[in-house]
Amino acid sequence: MKETYLIKNIYDNHNLLVDKEIYLNGWIKNCRFQKKIFFININDGSFVKDLQIVLKNNDNINLNIIKENLQIGVAICVKGILIKTKKTEQPFELLSSQIFFFNKNLLSYPIQPKKHSNSFLRKIAHLRLRTRLFGVIFRIRNTVTCAINNFFQNEDFIQVHTPIITTSDGEGAGELFKVTTLDFKKIPTNENKKINFKEDFFGKATFLTVTGQLEAEAFAMAFSKVYTFGPTFRAENSHTIRHISEFWMIEPEMAFFNLQDNIIIAQKMIQNVIKFCLEKNKTDFEFLDQNIESNLIKRLKYISDLEKFPQITYENAIDILKKNQINFEIKPFYGMDLYTEHEKFLTDVFFKKPVFIINWPKEIKAFYMRNNDDNKTVAAMDLLVPKIGELIGGSQREERIEILEEKMKIFNISKDELEWYLDLRRFGSCVHSGFGLGFERFLLFLTGLENIRDVIAFPRISKSISLKK
Amino acid sequence: MKETYLIKNIYDNHNLLVDKEIYLNGWIKNCRFQKKIFFININDGSFVKDLQIVLKNNDNINLNIIKENLQIGVAICVKGILIKTKKTEQPFELLSSQIFFFNKNLLSYPIQPKKHSNSFLRKIAHLRLRTRLFGVIFRIRNTVTCAINNFFQNEDFIQVHTPIITTSDGEGAGELFKVTTLDFKKIPTNENKKINFKEDFFGKATFLTVTGQLEAEAFAMAFSKVYTFGPTFRAENSHTIRHISEFWMIEPEMAFFNLQDNIIIAQKMIQNVIKFCLEKNKTDFEFLDQNIESNLIKRLKYISDLEKFPQITYENAIDILKKNQINFEIKPFYGMDLYTEHEKFLTDVFFKKPVFIINWPKEIKAFYMRNNDDNKTVAAMDLLVPKIGELIGGSQREERIEILEEKMKIFNISKDELEWYLDLRRFGSCVHSGFGLGFERFLLFLTGLENIRDVIAFPRISKSISLKK
Repeated sequence: MKETYLIKNIYDNHNLLVDKEIYLNGWIKNCRFQKKIFFININDGSFVKDLQIVLKNNDNINLNIIKENLQIGVAICVKGILIKTKKTEQPFELLSSQIFFFNKNLLSYPIQPKKHSNSFLRKIAHLRLRTRLFGVIFRIRNTVTCAINNFFQNEDFIQVHTPIITTSDGEGAGELFKVTTLDFKKIPTNENKKINFKEDFFGKATFLTVTGQLEAEAFAMAFSKVYTFGPTFRAENSHTIRHISEFWMIEPEMAFFNLQDNIIIAQKMIQNVIKFCLEKNKTDFEFLDQNIESNLIKRLKYISDLEKFPQITYENAIDILKKNQINFEIKPFYGMDLYTEHEKFLTDVFFKKPVFIINWPKEIKAFYMRNNDDNKTVAAMDLLVPKIGELIGGSQREERIEILEEKMKIFNISKDELEWYLDLRRFGSCVHSGFGLGFERFLLFLTGLENIRDVIAFPRISKSISLKK
Repeated sequence: MKETYLIKNIYDNHNLLVDKEIYLNGWIKNCRFQKKIFFININDGSFVKDLQIVLKNNDNINLNIIKENLQIGVAICVKGILIKTKKTEQPFELLSSQIFFFNKNLLSYPIQPKKHSNSFLRKIAHLRLRTRLFGVIFRIRNTVTCAINNFFQNEDFIQVHTPIITTSDGEGAGELFKVTTLDFKKIPTNENKKINFKEDFFGKATFLTVTGQLEAEAFAMAFSKVYTFGPTFRAENSHTIRHISEFWMIEPEMAFFNLQDNIIIAQKMIQNVIKFCLEKNKTDFEFLDQNIESNLIKRLKYISDLEKFPQITYENAIDILKKNQINFEIKPFYGMDLYTEHEKFLTDVFFKKPVFIINWPKEIKAFYMRNNDDNKTVAAMDLLVPKIGELIGGSQREERIEILEEKMKIFNISKDELEWYLDLRRFGSCVHSGFGLGFERFLLFLTGLENIRDVIAFPRISKSISLKK
């Protein structure tokens, strides 16, 4: 039987495989030619390090003939014996007895064994996946996905899938993408000259979701502990290193959890995921530590080992900012939302660790957050972390229907599309809480990368969606 | 410390918990009142069975006073001692020392302890989640999600997230939803009176994805083995029990896999997931076996234990249908796509098990499927299964750029938006394969349910998106 291995498996089990004949598939990353011996590095995307293949003339291999096939980027299948070497950084290599070349490159391959800038690579998003850095990033992205799923499953949450196409605009905030099958050349109108959405696919105006939270609450009222992991959308015309129009969110929602329970599970999740990933993708993090952010691993370990993230009220936070204000562009005052400079001061300068900010003025938070007894604040919590600022936003939810209805009025949220949401308070209502974690932002925090477009494969940004013009 | 348990944990560990004081949260499902003792059943969504709570007068409980609070559907928190009973079907119950009621129901709760029709429940999708049947369904949905992730992770696949908003229409088939921020009242046109998409959010026409496959191929050319698990969309105006406009797909894509490798991994996945779920959600499947499809568990076990699913060519399949044709509404002929009646004959009557149909006429399959040497067929595979018909569709992909380009011409696929896809053949091209599994269809297969609207929480169907009018 043909024993085909991934490079990752070879690094994991090389002691068992030495002197054995194995098959390998991969892409050529580098070639070095000597007179009677060629060295090529191949990678199959399973591991950060390449494997060195040694080619000599033999019954199946004629170096003079195969030389022209040895192009960077070409896919090959190699048969050979794994042999020990005396080099410490590469204690084994594959002495090839046979090599098969898949299709040749048709043009000069744009990714050569040298450093390419991330901005150059963004223009060839479909090919950048093959570089060492993006190999690291998307292996870690996979591991974080697993870690999040494992964490919640171990805590007896069930994963739920909330709809992508919706009729409501979720938080009443943010620009929405419309979803339609109307013919743009003949938009139908009714007698009042308004758009006649009855002729649209769903018979009414529909949008891409900005959050799965509201539907997750319906699930939580049935299953106690649930979480979503799905795409969400914002049609914001922002061209910053932190904004994209399509991103993934994790939104846990828990019946019978108050704000403090919510905070506990959020911290536990962050710390669990860090530990899981650092162990599972050790070599990938070592690469990032060496090439992207020095002391990345130390930073993450420090955070994952912290006893309890500090917790302050919004009012405290404003006081701290006021007392320490030096050069803030926007002077802190009670009632404002925090800006990046304020968040960074709190996390990077003042606390030097993650911090939960709780009890925010009700006017600047979403309508569904639970009013506190002071009638001034809501039971909201934001988790700010060093480097990133806000990583998590959550709250206890308003479970009292009369207060919720009044807040919907104040926030100008149409009841029509949310009668079902109010039903969750009409029947079996109870204390409940939840939070949202932006997946790509979490990946920036974990990888040390700066630009959100580098942690999602095919970023969607205003006026920029194509890979090539 | 307050020891709060899920009902599932109590059923799992009742021997350890007997005579201990515990806390429980849940919703009242049923009440029985006797003079000096009340029995209530509560459920928290974690388990198919309820837990019986016994209430007697004590220091904290006055039965006369609490009686009016004991409404079906209301959320409660109970403190009590778990005690053994002599009943075999319910060997324990909770003798409550204290009970706390969350919010009252404001209106008569529409879900009473009696049988409601699924069509009635579809109208209250946000509340049907609280019924026993939908509890079972969405716990299984969660477990299938885990099982699929576990399977692929154990096989060294990495999960990738492909974009939802796209500029291409994927397979060149199917009706697309448009995604736009254009103002429907003032659709901009250019000098040629065509829609001016330069003014749209992304600067060009964009749609909801119908498949993540093409981008998954870009990942496979970097990471060897990858899979997607995400939402996909069809703006089809079908009102059948098998069609919805928004559904989830699993799309694995593997470099260096040919059609037979593809078939092997597809069968292995199906069988693995069945085994995992039957074990993990034993009581949920017992419920379905008793209430939805008798012998469901037997049917699933039979399939998960099969050695190798049979495999026939499309030509064989047509021959079988022709020889056995009795009452087909559409007479089988070479070159046609198979209809449900043909699929059902093959799986339910002829083979009585799942069957792979391979090597389909190239005209009726997608442009990216690999031409066979006969120049008549493509290396496609459909997996048909009893009850459902087509469950999986896959193929080896055309890796030879000259053939791919020619097929794009024949199929009238615009090259403009797919230059990047052609790049995957220009650089490092190799044999590769993949398939797509419709998640909700798989759930019908696994649960025995008939209507796809019952295995997704908030189904999106033409002219039907709201929960309440």
